[in-house]
Amino acid sequence: MKLDLEHAIALLARTPAALDALVRGLPDAWTLANEGERTWSAFDIVGHLIHGERTDWMPRAKIILQFGEARAFTPFDRLAQQRERHGKSLPQLLDEFAALREENLRELRSLDLQACDLDRRGKHPSLGTVTLSQLLAAWAVHDLTHLHQMSRVLAHQYRDAVGPWSAYLGVLHCAGHSS
Amino acid sequence: MKLDLEHAIALLARTPAALDALVRGLPDAWTLANEGERTWSAFDIVGHLIHGERTDWMPRAKIILQFGEARAFTPFDRLAQQRERHGKSLPQLLDEFAALREENLRELRSLDLQACDLDRRGKHPSLGTVTLSQLLAAWAVHDLTHLHQMSRVLAHQYRDAVGPWSAYLGVLHCAGHSS
Repeated sequence: MKLDLEHAIALLARTPAALDALVRGLPDAWTLANEGERTWSAFDIVGHLIHGERTDWMPRAKIILQFGEARAFTPFDRLAQQRERHGKSLPQLLDEFAALREENLRELRSLDLQACDLDRRGKHPSLGTVTLSQLLAAWAVHDLTHLHQMSRVLAHQYRDAVGPWSAYLGVLHCAGHSS
Repeated sequence: MKLDLEHAIALLARTPAALDALVRGLPDAWTLANEGERTWSAFDIVGHLIHGERTDWMPRAKIILQFGEARAFTPFDRLAQQRERHGKSLPQLLDEFAALREENLRELRSLDLQACDLDRRGKHPSLGTVTLSQLLAAWAVHDLTHLHQMSRVLAHQYRDAVGPWSAYLGVLHCAGHSS
């Protein structure tokens, strides 16, 4: 389906509460565990989402509206959540993500984008020409990518504990798909 | 990691609220859409989880405790959510799932299971011998399998809308893994 701005906002607005309900107060054995060396924990994922709110989605939307294809986006630093999370607890990160998302969606609404705006083009440093509509759809699907990842990271912790049920539990057969 | 009963309960207790936060009030364009013929929508997934609460996890735990391997579990009807959801709205299904899960976890706690109980064996109709510990771990990972699926089903709706970002969005490369 095509991007519908209100539908995209409806999804983007729900992600912080969904992650909050899933992991706030869970034992560290769940939230600090990852899938092995150089993989992310639930904690890392929330840090990554915070960094996206600060530096990726809305800043890029504004670059498109202001500069079009004349100015490429700043490349996204996928490891910067290590700085975002430094010294913070998971509840603090969850609060921060919720507040940043709320502020970003407020700003997005205030832009009062029209259909013609959604077709405006920008320049991604490696993907090339993209539209504002694609950026906003990618923002929503980026949330879902990390919810998908988080469910997989949590499930991984019980990979052995489920015994023969492993055959029926699809999430244990997901190898991750992020490039 | 090994199953820790309190940790498993902590996760199981959070799933209804996480799904609720994610999909309650979302436009039908998100919640009724699936990944194509004979695949599930977010709506179907919640119906499936309700059916599991009624007929699968706790009923099977009680069969293990009462009959051990002498009585195989009743096979799980994976299509029964079509009956569960009949005539109901998504908010009704979410409420029902939350209430059933709460009741099941209350009953699980009331069993006051000890380490030796977790090693008790039962007979799965197709997987053969399983332990109570494996059953409880599988219950938690089953939640995560369907959260993983739900994030994928929602993301699928914007498969085209994200344009070239598709390359970076792992959830769009997940082919599903349930057998």
